[in-house]
Amino acid sequence: MSKKPYIRPLDFKHGCIDLTHGSGGRAMAQLIDELFLKAFDNPLLRQLNDQAAFDVPAGRMVMATDSHVVTPLFFPGGDIGSLAVHGTVNDVAMSGARPLYLAAGFILEEGFPLGDLKRIVESMAAAAEEAGVAIVTGDTKVVEQGKGDGVFINTTGFGVVPPGIDISGNRARPGDRILVNGTLGDHGVAIMSQRENLSFGTGIESDSVALHGLVAAMVETVPNLHCLRDPTRGGLAATLNELAQQSAVGMRIEESSLPLREGVRGACEFLGLDPLYVANEGKLVAICAAEDAEPLLEAMREHPLGREAAIIGEVQEDPNHFVQMQTAFGGMRMVDWISGEQLPRIC
Amino acid sequence: MSKKPYIRPLDFKHGCIDLTHGSGGRAMAQLIDELFLKAFDNPLLRQLNDQAAFDVPAGRMVMATDSHVVTPLFFPGGDIGSLAVHGTVNDVAMSGARPLYLAAGFILEEGFPLGDLKRIVESMAAAAEEAGVAIVTGDTKVVEQGKGDGVFINTTGFGVVPPGIDISGNRARPGDRILVNGTLGDHGVAIMSQRENLSFGTGIESDSVALHGLVAAMVETVPNLHCLRDPTRGGLAATLNELAQQSAVGMRIEESSLPLREGVRGACEFLGLDPLYVANEGKLVAICAAEDAEPLLEAMREHPLGREAAIIGEVQEDPNHFVQMQTAFGGMRMVDWISGEQLPRIC
Repeated sequence: MSKKPYIRPLDFKHGCIDLTHGSGGRAMAQLIDELFLKAFDNPLLRQLNDQAAFDVPAGRMVMATDSHVVTPLFFPGGDIGSLAVHGTVNDVAMSGARPLYLAAGFILEEGFPLGDLKRIVESMAAAAEEAGVAIVTGDTKVVEQGKGDGVFINTTGFGVVPPGIDISGNRARPGDRILVNGTLGDHGVAIMSQRENLSFGTGIESDSVALHGLVAAMVETVPNLHCLRDPTRGGLAATLNELAQQSAVGMRIEESSLPLREGVRGACEFLGLDPLYVANEGKLVAICAAEDAEPLLEAMREHPLGREAAIIGEVQEDPNHFVQMQTAFGGMRMVDWISGEQLPRIC
Repeated sequence: MSKKPYIRPLDFKHGCIDLTHGSGGRAMAQLIDELFLKAFDNPLLRQLNDQAAFDVPAGRMVMATDSHVVTPLFFPGGDIGSLAVHGTVNDVAMSGARPLYLAAGFILEEGFPLGDLKRIVESMAAAAEEAGVAIVTGDTKVVEQGKGDGVFINTTGFGVVPPGIDISGNRARPGDRILVNGTLGDHGVAIMSQRENLSFGTGIESDSVALHGLVAAMVETVPNLHCLRDPTRGGLAATLNELAQQSAVGMRIEESSLPLREGVRGACEFLGLDPLYVANEGKLVAICAAEDAEPLLEAMREHPLGREAAIIGEVQEDPNHFVQMQTAFGGMRMVDWISGEQLPRIC
């Protein structure tokens, strides 16, 4: 937090994180000054207090938090920094809120290259700027080598819900339509393609992106949107099961309606994975009344992040709250929760 | 998030965290149901969305975040769970705000005993209840064995600043008085006493506690309080140097005025540590106008968490922004930032 020049500036070419960078002393102040403040610069962060203060109008606010432990740290279409911004912006946006502020907490492993950290922090700053959110407060901790894994990033987001919007996972009703904004499984396959022993070069990039602009367009067209959720860990299957449970309904989706890239389909077949369970980071599931479905689909398709949007199924009465899928061959299949682990550390 | 009974309830006696607990599937839902929702239960958390929504009046809000990586996880006077609540509640409170809500992000290591996690989560729940804050949203990630260290907890707090309060690190002015609410270094010495090879049994407990009640009493008596900050990592020395830099002033403190337990003094002498640099988790530094110092001191001493409060020095003009200490022997000594690491992973 010092304005005094440090004896030597941080060496982003050859330097590494050491325990002093988390000690609360001069080395930590230097890391904050020369890296975080520079990259994230904004008036709230520049208050340099241990908290950020800002004025809000009366109304409905939301808060969402996500810790990011993705491995590898850099992957096709993004890195842990951009993912940490998109993931939390999207959790805020899934309430219909406009995301405003992010808090960022870093857990760094001793020995982590300062150059990699700089790349991640700058990617985070770019993602935040593109999303129009400010990173207003933060925290840095350092753990010994072997007690972490390079860098973990927690982001907590804060946003404001426009008046009249009431989007919640418990609002799905029988007869409602289920929509997605585009292709499924891109993020998970992009990460897998980079993992050790799985380098099969699919050319698939993560779909990681901030969705609040798309959400704003959707609620403008259909203010009475019932549910929104981003199918991240556990994929579409986990999200639909969560919503079915929360709303005490069943769901039926059609396999032939699910948008899927050829490369993702191929990679999943090769690996024995089901794309329904593969994570996304730039997708959303929307549920609305039947009569709102066509206008909503149109609004989504007009937005750059909804070009491949589709109506994929509908909500049904079902005391068991099952999610079922009509397969391409005409049969019905249960879409259950996964009980085991499909893809660890995907976000 | 399921309301269905799981086939077998979690085994808190012999069970361990595995990667499925972070997968977004049924095992994660079970962990959330049977541990987190049960311990933290409140209406906002029960919304079960990926974000918590709440109504606020117009005004000044604050946000603060802290990742907790303390080792050992359990220590005299607390554990990582209570610390994660107190640390963030205090960062929020140091703006004069009333803390309202917390978000909690867990990074768990594969193999971590479920029983230890339960103990930590219940301690967190008790600390939150005692502090009158609700844990309204959360996130759980699991990393492979050897890629974490048991459990890391990020907490992000949200609070409301009462009208008319403007507390900030840049408001210290020459002539202002510097106060603390009690003895210094207790937390750091309590942690050290538990570390391997340092088991010297001081009987000192961590001072970890939520300070917003004390702060409320202080701003009621002195609404024009200039600065508040909790001297955690880096101790009193780091905090005074930060405030001196931010306010562009110098400071002079008196060694004879610093409240210090005999056990802490002894442990520091034994270990060659300076108590000025040892962390606290239930202490605050307050800076106010000279004429407000006595009323403020009185208000602090009337509060259970300020019984041993003291005026420890004053703010001075100083273009170098130095912090100096009049020693017990009458000499003057520089109180600089530490540049190295005194105590890694103290919070």
